[in-house]
Amino acid sequence: MSASEALVVFTPSGRRGRFPVGTPVLQAARSLGVDIDSVCGGRGICGRCQVLVSEGEFAKHGLVSRADNLSPVSVVEQEYCSSQTMEPGRRLSCSAQVLGDVVIDVPSSSQVHKQVVRKEAEAHDVQLDPLIRLHFVEVQQPDMHDPSGDLRRLEDALEFEWRLTDLACDVIVVQQLQTALRKGEWKVTVAVHAGRQIVAVWPGFREHVYGLAIDVGSTTIAAHLCHLASGEVVASAGVMNPQIRFGEDLMSRVSYVMMNPGGEKEMTAVVRAALNELAAEVCHQANIEPQEILEATFVGNPIMHHLLLGINPVELGGAPFALATDRAITLWAIEIDFAIHRNARIYVLPCIAGHVGADTAGVILAERPDLSDKITLLVDVGTNAEIVLGNNQRLLACSSPTGPAFEGAQISCGQRAAPGAIERVRVDPQTLEPRFKVIGCELWSDDPGFASATSGTGVTGVCGSGIIEVLAEMYLAGVILHDGTINGALAARSPRIQADGRTFSYELYPATDSKPALKIMQNDVRAIQLGKAALYAGVRLLMERMGVDKVDRIRLAGAFGSHIDVKYAMVLGMIPDCGLDQVSSAGNAAGTGARIALLDQRSRRDIEQLVRRVEKIETAVEPRFQEFFVEAMAIPHLTAPFERLREVVSLPERTVVHAEGSARGRRGSRREQGSIPVVGASS
Amino acid sequence: MSASEALVVFTPSGRRGRFPVGTPVLQAARSLGVDIDSVCGGRGICGRCQVLVSEGEFAKHGLVSRADNLSPVSVVEQEYCSSQTMEPGRRLSCSAQVLGDVVIDVPSSSQVHKQVVRKEAEAHDVQLDPLIRLHFVEVQQPDMHDPSGDLRRLEDALEFEWRLTDLACDVIVVQQLQTALRKGEWKVTVAVHAGRQIVAVWPGFREHVYGLAIDVGSTTIAAHLCHLASGEVVASAGVMNPQIRFGEDLMSRVSYVMMNPGGEKEMTAVVRAALNELAAEVCHQANIEPQEILEATFVGNPIMHHLLLGINPVELGGAPFALATDRAITLWAIEIDFAIHRNARIYVLPCIAGHVGADTAGVILAERPDLSDKITLLVDVGTNAEIVLGNNQRLLACSSPTGPAFEGAQISCGQRAAPGAIERVRVDPQTLEPRFKVIGCELWSDDPGFASATSGTGVTGVCGSGIIEVLAEMYLAGVILHDGTINGALAARSPRIQADGRTFSYELYPATDSKPALKIMQNDVRAIQLGKAALYAGVRLLMERMGVDKVDRIRLAGAFGSHIDVKYAMVLGMIPDCGLDQVSSAGNAAGTGARIALLDQRSRRDIEQLVRRVEKIETAVEPRFQEFFVEAMAIPHLTAPFERLREVVSLPERTVVHAEGSARGRRGSRREQGSIPVVGASS
Repeated sequence: MSASEALVVFTPSGRRGRFPVGTPVLQAARSLGVDIDSVCGGRGICGRCQVLVSEGEFAKHGLVSRADNLSPVSVVEQEYCSSQTMEPGRRLSCSAQVLGDVVIDVPSSSQVHKQVVRKEAEAHDVQLDPLIRLHFVEVQQPDMHDPSGDLRRLEDALEFEWRLTDLACDVIVVQQLQTALRKGEWKVTVAVHAGRQIVAVWPGFREHVYGLAIDVGSTTIAAHLCHLASGEVVASAGVMNPQIRFGEDLMSRVSYVMMNPGGEKEMTAVVRAALNELAAEVCHQANIEPQEILEATFVGNPIMHHLLLGINPVELGGAPFALATDRAITLWAIEIDFAIHRNARIYVLPCIAGHVGADTAGVILAERPDLSDKITLLVDVGTNAEIVLGNNQRLLACSSPTGPAFEGAQISCGQRAAPGAIERVRVDPQTLEPRFKVIGCELWSDDPGFASATSGTGVTGVCGSGIIEVLAEMYLAGVILHDGTINGALAARSPRIQADGRTFSYELYPATDSKPALKIMQNDVRAIQLGKAALYAGVRLLMERMGVDKVDRIRLAGAFGSHIDVKYAMVLGMIPDCGLDQVSSAGNAAGTGARIALLDQRSRRDIEQLVRRVEKIETAVEPRFQEFFVEAMAIPHLTAPFERLREVVSLPERTVVHAEGSARGRRGSRREQGSIPVVGASS
Repeated sequence: MSASEALVVFTPSGRRGRFPVGTPVLQAARSLGVDIDSVCGGRGICGRCQVLVSEGEFAKHGLVSRADNLSPVSVVEQEYCSSQTMEPGRRLSCSAQVLGDVVIDVPSSSQVHKQVVRKEAEAHDVQLDPLIRLHFVEVQQPDMHDPSGDLRRLEDALEFEWRLTDLACDVIVVQQLQTALRKGEWKVTVAVHAGRQIVAVWPGFREHVYGLAIDVGSTTIAAHLCHLASGEVVASAGVMNPQIRFGEDLMSRVSYVMMNPGGEKEMTAVVRAALNELAAEVCHQANIEPQEILEATFVGNPIMHHLLLGINPVELGGAPFALATDRAITLWAIEIDFAIHRNARIYVLPCIAGHVGADTAGVILAERPDLSDKITLLVDVGTNAEIVLGNNQRLLACSSPTGPAFEGAQISCGQRAAPGAIERVRVDPQTLEPRFKVIGCELWSDDPGFASATSGTGVTGVCGSGIIEVLAEMYLAGVILHDGTINGALAARSPRIQADGRTFSYELYPATDSKPALKIMQNDVRAIQLGKAALYAGVRLLMERMGVDKVDRIRLAGAFGSHIDVKYAMVLGMIPDCGLDQVSSAGNAAGTGARIALLDQRSRRDIEQLVRRVEKIETAVEPRFQEFFVEAMAIPHLTAPFERLREVVSLPERTVVHAEGSARGRRGSRREQGSIPVVGASS
């Protein structure tokens, strides 16, 4: 060992090497391939390269590490600390030089490929690896004796300082380059996409660049604005999907196009306008400009996906439900009129099949059922339920036409989740009296003070998760029988059971002067039965295909999955038997998938390969689906004589309830295709 | 040899193989890698795959080739012949089957990579290899049991029929795909770019796709519309560059931007509008729609290049003349508002240096001086002369500020080449009387009938090539002395020599009632002297750098080069000594370069690599340029005492003459930078 050399060990990587005394720590790290972040290229501006000396004796490495084996805090570091906060003991690795043997800890926040830890215990971590990276460079000035272009000199600087070669460059950057270089006095920050394409250039040093992950739902569009370098969500917002005015559910939007050729253009235009509003909203929250967003990712069901991209969705409205494309799509933001940075790229996750969209791809990417031996069931309940079943051996997916009952639509007293909506219900098996909680109030309805606490909102209806609970509680109290009939014999025992024509109903909340009573009607039970039977039949179909009779864990995605009490879902037979502790909510897993695709470029390749492996099952052409469906109508599901169930299935045609206050109100009845009453791509 | 096999030899490739009897000729050719074109994929629709049997005994191949060793003319071939003309003896190789030993000739027109033969004897041939290829495919219909997207099934068909894999697809194609597939009953023609990107899809079979090669000159914009599959030019047109209203020469356009910030946007807008007019014009000629043009290439000098691309050109107006980029640029047509096919790509050849543009790159690509041992001098004379010198060892380039005199500007009787302009002149050494020819008339001015033949146009002025001739003839007749002075002593001998203040002039054409006389003034001679000295000094500078004192061949590009009588150019000392038979016109070589880049994708890589190799000489900072310039002022050039030449150089400041009828008229005098009177990027 030479006296003029020192041993440097980096943790947590464990990489080590000898370096001449005076070597900057960042340079030592780079030569060993240690992952340390930097935007400014070692100029002490960005503060991304902070490290910590681990002091003490490291017998394993044969060295004693001391903080003063690094050079004293430099002027550059003092200047950085004067404008930014830096934790005690931290050093800028670009400025601190190696004077003697030392163990250097690279904290997670200083790593380029840091882990983004997710809130939920069940969720796998995401490794940060964004497509867009910022690089600060000093560009050589032009010279008459060496007449190369500004762009070439910029590229030379990127190669010299960042080892980036063979870069392409967007034309708009070329248009802006001269001005940026001169305004920045030949120092600029460059955004490079995928290590290959220069997409933006700004005068001087720039620290942050942003990305946007967007879930285009048929009802709501939600967006998360992220720091691309840290993965941190800096703002979130949601807006109603303005396409609702063309039809509340997906099928009615497709119908609108069928009846109004060119109508898809209107719907594309309004959803794109809403995206721009949404981008403006998150930017306002984060106090940035939309031009600072350089990347966006999208998920959505097939019809939302097609309308977003300007593809006519009518093919998705009827058999064989052919997607225009089932590939992931990368395009320019401007191609979908998205007014973020002019050179921003959009990534749209792949659709899987005509009824299984990029939203399901997002759920798969968020949950990665393919990484486990355990058989996982993923269910995203909306007007359609998207169902994924599998493990590291196989993945299967289908969509099942549950109808909108789980969202509180088509239920006489149903409503969207909003303050005043009943979400928790208990029915006393003895008295058959209900008690409940409403959204926006922590009290039960029989608690003192409930009336005054809810006087603002009142008790307005029952939301999707509330419907499940009330039906399950009614069943457990014997008010609903196995076949779904409301037991009229109980009318003698309780005034809650009331005759309504030839069937009976259960009064949950009495009429007031201004509002009718909230009642569970026989048809409401039938709507939920149809929905849960469709969901269960889809699950059973996948289980049969996979050759399993039980699943190891169940993850419920989406808003419904977040609010439902899984016990009641199991009572009703919505989901197969599974240890209750193995059933959990996956939150907005589709949106999480969009965020992962935004933050980790390799995840895009992963999901593109994964969706190719998914075995797609089309429920509409599977005779077994109809059998499972019929079997699953009862509560809990049982194999009843077929003739008896025929009667149950023979319900009146369903009607679509529209958003409150809609001028068009009910759209009238709609005959569903196929032999099952509730079939179609409605969602 | 099995009786059920036959030997097939293809010419001119010489490839050979044995095939089972009944094998279609096209299939045999493909399995041997023989280059046979096809769009329809062997369905007998496109007729591209025509071949000919070479009959006779081929001892070398050990076979006797007979026409009836192919299957009889099929119904498919009969149908093709009923709608299209086919030369006698030709067969469709997709339909004709091998029955016995046969020699098959693949005519050039049936090859994908055919040679495009150029008109000029000196020009190298171009190998056709367009980026865009058409492929007719039948796509599998969607199926509920295999729910893949339309795009995937299209890609499967392209892979199965054409072995194209890993294709990307423009979003607009995805938007149009469903309609095209259904309208074409699952048969579509697909345009694939560079074997990698699907850029267009049409229902049914489509035979042709077009490309456009465009030369954006400061005065004129010229376009050639080509069949991409044959290389044939199907229409050509030119329009005036409407930027002329912002300044006739390049420098005055840059000045306009300097004086009117944002003015570059106006100039960008008008040139782009002119491109759309031009595209409409060539499409009208060829009776096609602009949407059938899928590819366009551009050349132009650096300022035209920057303005076309929306890059502010002011940096090119002053030292160090920094280009925004010296790289070739590929972009979407829509990015320059070019209303051809929505997914068309644009390729802009690379600029070389601040004064040496993509037009010079085009000249190099058309002439390929790098392919020869011989030292070639390429000169493109405009307001600037772009000069390239070199061979397969080295290439050098510079731009020399010749001024607009060679184009007839700044000459008292000068005018643009147009009917009525004098273009040929002889001066009788005895009588000093001139005779001449004007554009639009085959007669000499002393031929009987000249007056009546030219009565429509009159004799209006002298064009650029005419100026060179009259000066050279005046010199040869002794009217102009070595130093460029018009010899006043001759006024005694001829009334043509007239005193004009302190100098003399030569009357070429007498005054009429309506027009003044056409006279060569002393200042006219000076302007040409300055121009030719600049040109010659640039050439000498490159020759000195290259270490040569003579060149092997000279190619004169551009309109001036096409019309000039090279003998006179040599008399005046514009170009270095060279065998007269080694001096020729290269026509619009820049435009030819654009056409080559359109037709042969590999030529793009060639020129991109070539321009990197070019040694760029900036005349403005080369002291030797000034020395050569001063030396070259005399006619013919001679090394005169420096003091004597000082006088010659001390000319009045130059003024810029604007387009006839321009409301702004003269822009006033303009002092040029540097120590040489005529320096700058004006062109």
